[in-house]
Amino acid sequence: MSQVFFDNIQQHIHLSEEEKELLLSYFKTKKIRKRQFLLEEGDVCKHSAFVLSGCLRCYFIDENGFEHILQFAVEDWWITDMMSIITQNPSRLNIDALEESEILLIKREDQTELLEKIPQLEKYFRIKTESGLAHIQSRLLENLSLPAKERYLNLMKKYPRIVEKVPQKQIASYLGITPEFLSKVRKELVKN
Amino acid sequence: MSQVFFDNIQQHIHLSEEEKELLLSYFKTKKIRKRQFLLEEGDVCKHSAFVLSGCLRCYFIDENGFEHILQFAVEDWWITDMMSIITQNPSRLNIDALEESEILLIKREDQTELLEKIPQLEKYFRIKTESGLAHIQSRLLENLSLPAKERYLNLMKKYPRIVEKVPQKQIASYLGITPEFLSKVRKELVKN
Repeated sequence: MSQVFFDNIQQHIHLSEEEKELLLSYFKTKKIRKRQFLLEEGDVCKHSAFVLSGCLRCYFIDENGFEHILQFAVEDWWITDMMSIITQNPSRLNIDALEESEILLIKREDQTELLEKIPQLEKYFRIKTESGLAHIQSRLLENLSLPAKERYLNLMKKYPRIVEKVPQKQIASYLGITPEFLSKVRKELVKN
Repeated sequence: MSQVFFDNIQQHIHLSEEEKELLLSYFKTKKIRKRQFLLEEGDVCKHSAFVLSGCLRCYFIDENGFEHILQFAVEDWWITDMMSIITQNPSRLNIDALEESEILLIKREDQTELLEKIPQLEKYFRIKTESGLAHIQSRLLENLSLPAKERYLNLMKKYPRIVEKVPQKQIASYLGITPEFLSKVRKELVKN
């Protein structure tokens, strides 16, 4: 299972067998059931999670009770609440599983220690964070500028695995539209 | 002038005098006039910029010709188009100066080389990128959930230097409201 993780890391840096062993000793493997929470609003975010299998989502609930999904994470993606984990303030977000999932968890303080022991990993996390920043920047830009149909097409193009895997209701929430409207958009796309 | 930069770095890592000198040799100092562009939509983003003085903004123009500001950068902040710089695809964003500014510029390929020469800097850039990610995550969350008044109050609380420095028209564009509506919000706040 951890091969998924090593493959992801070794796209960017090379680790020796000893380093891999040391690295893994800082992580805990965890199975989470569908709908089980990894983080609940009001709690301080302690962990970053790497998804080995399954699918997680990060969302918040607005004052009218509507869910807004910020991010999905499928196999070989990272997920955390970056604001809460770096400030250690209570989170405004929830992270839960959309299906039974297996994840690798690391505590913030353990990550800091690990980075001291294997400084090369700084490069890996820097690159992963840059990529996360780029994606959320695009998401904000699309949210502010593109109509729902275009946003859906972009999601399909950029993250086909997510559109395949994630229930339509969740995709609609991510796009900020109703499931009915998404269904209309999909029918239109099939017709054209 | 570069003291601002070293102070920012040395909050996170320690550099020797030789390393500081090497570091600076990778940057170009540039003065940019008010309204001058650092990046224009359609160009590939080549540089990251650290602001020594002044104020820059990153924005895009939607199909109706409206400007949407994604980020301001005042003294000791970084600014770039992360998506364009890592993918080397043309940018959908513009970066320009709101007032005469002085910046330090580094090309992406020079940054890569610099990181090989001073690997400690990986930690600095990882932390800066984490912080950038956290802020844009909060911005997306607030955009989706909070009314304009709350978003303005949060901006004042979190970035008082920006609210002080940046013209009201720009603040309104950042908040996604008209300048008239912002003026109404401000009057209400003064009254209470």
